[in-house]
Amino acid sequence: MRPVRNSALAFLTAGFVLLMSVQAAFAEDPLVQAVQTVAPNMEPVIPHVLQSNEAREKLAALEKKFGKKPNILIFLMDDVGYGDPGCFGGGHMSGAATPNIDRLCKEGLMLTSCYAQPSCSPTRATIMTGRLPIRHGILRPPMYGEKGGLQGEITMAQLLNEAGYATQAVGKWHMGENVESQPQNVGFEDFFGFLSVSDMYTEWRDSYFYPEIVHNPARTAMVEAQKFNKHLVHAKKGGPIENLDEITIPVCSKLDEMWADYSLGFIRRAAADKRPFFLYHCTRGCHFDNYPNDKFKGKSACKYPYKDVIVEIDDVLGRLVKELETTGQLDNTLIFVTSDNGPEMEAWPDCGYSPFRGAKGSTWEGGMRVPGVAYWHGMINSGRVNDGLFDLSDLFTTSLAVAGASSKVPADRFIDGVDQTSYLLAHDGESNRKFVYYWLKTDLSALRCAEYKFFRMATDFDHKDTVCVGGFSGYNKEYTFGKFFNLYLDPTETHSYLIRKLVYTGLISEALNAHRETLKKYPPKIVVTVD
Amino acid sequence: MRPVRNSALAFLTAGFVLLMSVQAAFAEDPLVQAVQTVAPNMEPVIPHVLQSNEAREKLAALEKKFGKKPNILIFLMDDVGYGDPGCFGGGHMSGAATPNIDRLCKEGLMLTSCYAQPSCSPTRATIMTGRLPIRHGILRPPMYGEKGGLQGEITMAQLLNEAGYATQAVGKWHMGENVESQPQNVGFEDFFGFLSVSDMYTEWRDSYFYPEIVHNPARTAMVEAQKFNKHLVHAKKGGPIENLDEITIPVCSKLDEMWADYSLGFIRRAAADKRPFFLYHCTRGCHFDNYPNDKFKGKSACKYPYKDVIVEIDDVLGRLVKELETTGQLDNTLIFVTSDNGPEMEAWPDCGYSPFRGAKGSTWEGGMRVPGVAYWHGMINSGRVNDGLFDLSDLFTTSLAVAGASSKVPADRFIDGVDQTSYLLAHDGESNRKFVYYWLKTDLSALRCAEYKFFRMATDFDHKDTVCVGGFSGYNKEYTFGKFFNLYLDPTETHSYLIRKLVYTGLISEALNAHRETLKKYPPKIVVTVD
Repeated sequence: MRPVRNSALAFLTAGFVLLMSVQAAFAEDPLVQAVQTVAPNMEPVIPHVLQSNEAREKLAALEKKFGKKPNILIFLMDDVGYGDPGCFGGGHMSGAATPNIDRLCKEGLMLTSCYAQPSCSPTRATIMTGRLPIRHGILRPPMYGEKGGLQGEITMAQLLNEAGYATQAVGKWHMGENVESQPQNVGFEDFFGFLSVSDMYTEWRDSYFYPEIVHNPARTAMVEAQKFNKHLVHAKKGGPIENLDEITIPVCSKLDEMWADYSLGFIRRAAADKRPFFLYHCTRGCHFDNYPNDKFKGKSACKYPYKDVIVEIDDVLGRLVKELETTGQLDNTLIFVTSDNGPEMEAWPDCGYSPFRGAKGSTWEGGMRVPGVAYWHGMINSGRVNDGLFDLSDLFTTSLAVAGASSKVPADRFIDGVDQTSYLLAHDGESNRKFVYYWLKTDLSALRCAEYKFFRMATDFDHKDTVCVGGFSGYNKEYTFGKFFNLYLDPTETHSYLIRKLVYTGLISEALNAHRETLKKYPPKIVVTVD
Repeated sequence: MRPVRNSALAFLTAGFVLLMSVQAAFAEDPLVQAVQTVAPNMEPVIPHVLQSNEAREKLAALEKKFGKKPNILIFLMDDVGYGDPGCFGGGHMSGAATPNIDRLCKEGLMLTSCYAQPSCSPTRATIMTGRLPIRHGILRPPMYGEKGGLQGEITMAQLLNEAGYATQAVGKWHMGENVESQPQNVGFEDFFGFLSVSDMYTEWRDSYFYPEIVHNPARTAMVEAQKFNKHLVHAKKGGPIENLDEITIPVCSKLDEMWADYSLGFIRRAAADKRPFFLYHCTRGCHFDNYPNDKFKGKSACKYPYKDVIVEIDDVLGRLVKELETTGQLDNTLIFVTSDNGPEMEAWPDCGYSPFRGAKGSTWEGGMRVPGVAYWHGMINSGRVNDGLFDLSDLFTTSLAVAGASSKVPADRFIDGVDQTSYLLAHDGESNRKFVYYWLKTDLSALRCAEYKFFRMATDFDHKDTVCVGGFSGYNKEYTFGKFFNLYLDPTETHSYLIRKLVYTGLISEALNAHRETLKKYPPKIVVTVD
């Protein structure tokens, strides 16, 4: 019996070793990479124990040095494409140099796979709540005083404020004009900016672009009759909205300068504040229609308004960074620079550039992949570039972690953002996110894991001779079997090779189903048809 | 009468001032920018007197320091796309990091508008002769011992050699296998490499890609019966070709390493040579089919052969630069890194990436716009990026100028390359080139000036759902009225707006006609139908 037993044991041992080695090999495949549950209501994370420890130690040492938690500056640009900044392939090439973004990029962490939502307000609310649009409910930008906004949501501003942060929002809001959704009522101590979006203030005032309204009193009256706030506004926590200048075209052209000055003042004052700060600076530029102010008119090589405004907002970023440096706060401030969606190609020629397929309004890479730069002098190693996944919902969870306030992450609703602190701070940090989910309003459109992207359905356009289109005029296409892209081999999503990746079919279904399950367990505000 | 005369004078003066200011304004429009004739047989240049002086002084000071003319290293990659290097938008994003190219790019001059020809051999011969393919006659790559090559042309290697340079070619040749066109007979003192192109050595040996040949003795015999050189070869000036290893697949996978070692040896020996050198290093990578050697297999994030070879050739570049540094020659060496054409998309998935429309084989930007990096430690200012036009024919004229041998530029034939020394060397040097001419074999396809590109005809493809195609299977489309693109607003050439640029119609015709005139005055080897 003994030999038999030994043989059996040997066989079992060999089997175990084989299994282990298969598992070890499996562990390197991105689709089967192990994830860890953080909480039942949170997107699971790829655990990186060593880099997490490294990040924790770095943060502790910094707090010791500065005697307070770190500041957070989110610099959010509008409709700026992945390819617009020089470091992402544009800059001089596309006629508008961006020396300031480029410098932060070179001296910080360049994220080549950073994802927004397909349009503006959904992205902004996703940053603010750590939740995808299907959960926070802002599926598209509300216009002209339309309902819909942040009310009922818990924002990072609110939680950071509760954790002892000075919270300041400057610039574009566009997460609801209604009182409950206004910035001063969802966590910001102060707000200086406008409540909606640039074109709403000007698209009925510009006689060149919109003569059919401007030269027709009845149509102008139609616009004016709509209940929306037409002003640059100011508000203090819990207080009313105070209307300042009405946003005419000349005022519009000065907004980015006024907002820059306001943020500079805030940064200066913050230096004397015992509290750390969260500054959420959202530029007006480069949303159509662009009216660059005199200081920047003609300053881009291209000379078009959009491009001049690119030069301007890059300059604004440079000024904010400079002020942080001058006031001794640079080393204690995490700066994150990004955009709210891909370029709005329907505004061509006054628009941005993405090397990818599609544009704003779509779940092609051109619609959702945005420039992402994390810069933190002394904390994030210079010259890093990483293609690991980063979803802008991660800013919510990461900011709270950096602020030492992870315990404040809500437990009563699903949180899609994962804590990326260690990705950002560790020497060679890797992403803690396994999947990016691409939602197109209420449709789960695609899934990315590592370099693979699987499409269930997508937006397409009626044009024949172009892929560089976008905006809101596409139609939905549901793929009979799906499309499968390798974004390394095919960054522009033109060669689907699903038939060569059938091995992943089951794993993709599992991932999509697991994601859908979260919607069943934590029902979203919107009724979703999950198929 | 006097008052009248005064009035007339005042009127004339006012008119003159007006005319001058209009001319000053005109002088800023790229299409009417003044050019200077250098010689009747040379492409005119945009004169930049100050920057030319600056470059001249820099070169004189350097010669004083080193006691010899500067070295020139051209590092020419094969089928590598504009978007492949990280600094041009690829790298980590597309699954193959390129730290060495990126470093030279950051510390040198990044050329975002650097142009090759639509395919390999035409580009190589254009670099070597300073002449467009329509003039030197290599309109497409010669294959399997086909006729056609450099014979009858005057090369930069020959002229530099006559001017006292040690001349070394390493790697891919592909400018004719016939004796008169071989490197050792057109100016190189030494050659170590192969005479043709990578796929010719392997496409009938690989049973996976080409089973219909490999498993069919009659077909293999058909290939072997063709008279072409199947070997890695070595030659010395004026001598015969010496056959070394036959290039089987295992040998093919080692070529880039062998060639790197050969160039490293040359650089080491050059340090003791009183003569300056011209090293023309042409990689095997990343031409299909790629067989990365064991040292680099799986070393890219993407893991595909092309991507692994990107990692390898980037590493080779790093080694050459390091050797120049170690041997004290770095400050005396102009290094130019580029590729011979856009990515070959018919080889997908084993191919490169361009963010632009089209690919190898076309005159779309994807076919001809290539990464261009000029690095010269201490001579080219760090961190420069410039979108000024650079045609690879300029390497001929610029190299001769840097070598103090401009007087050797031939007078009996037309030279398309312009001297870009001051563009490269001056602190904020601007391009000396006004136009890039896009030839598609014998058709003058398009013209670029500044950000404008006018198309007469182009290659298109039968695919419907993609722009990321290319190769040699397109068809010619002649546009009824032309297409006109603004490459700043529209880097991917999707929005023609000719109707908005009719003001340029006459100027474009003039420029095209002036270019055609040069073909009449200096008849090319090929009979061209100029329409």
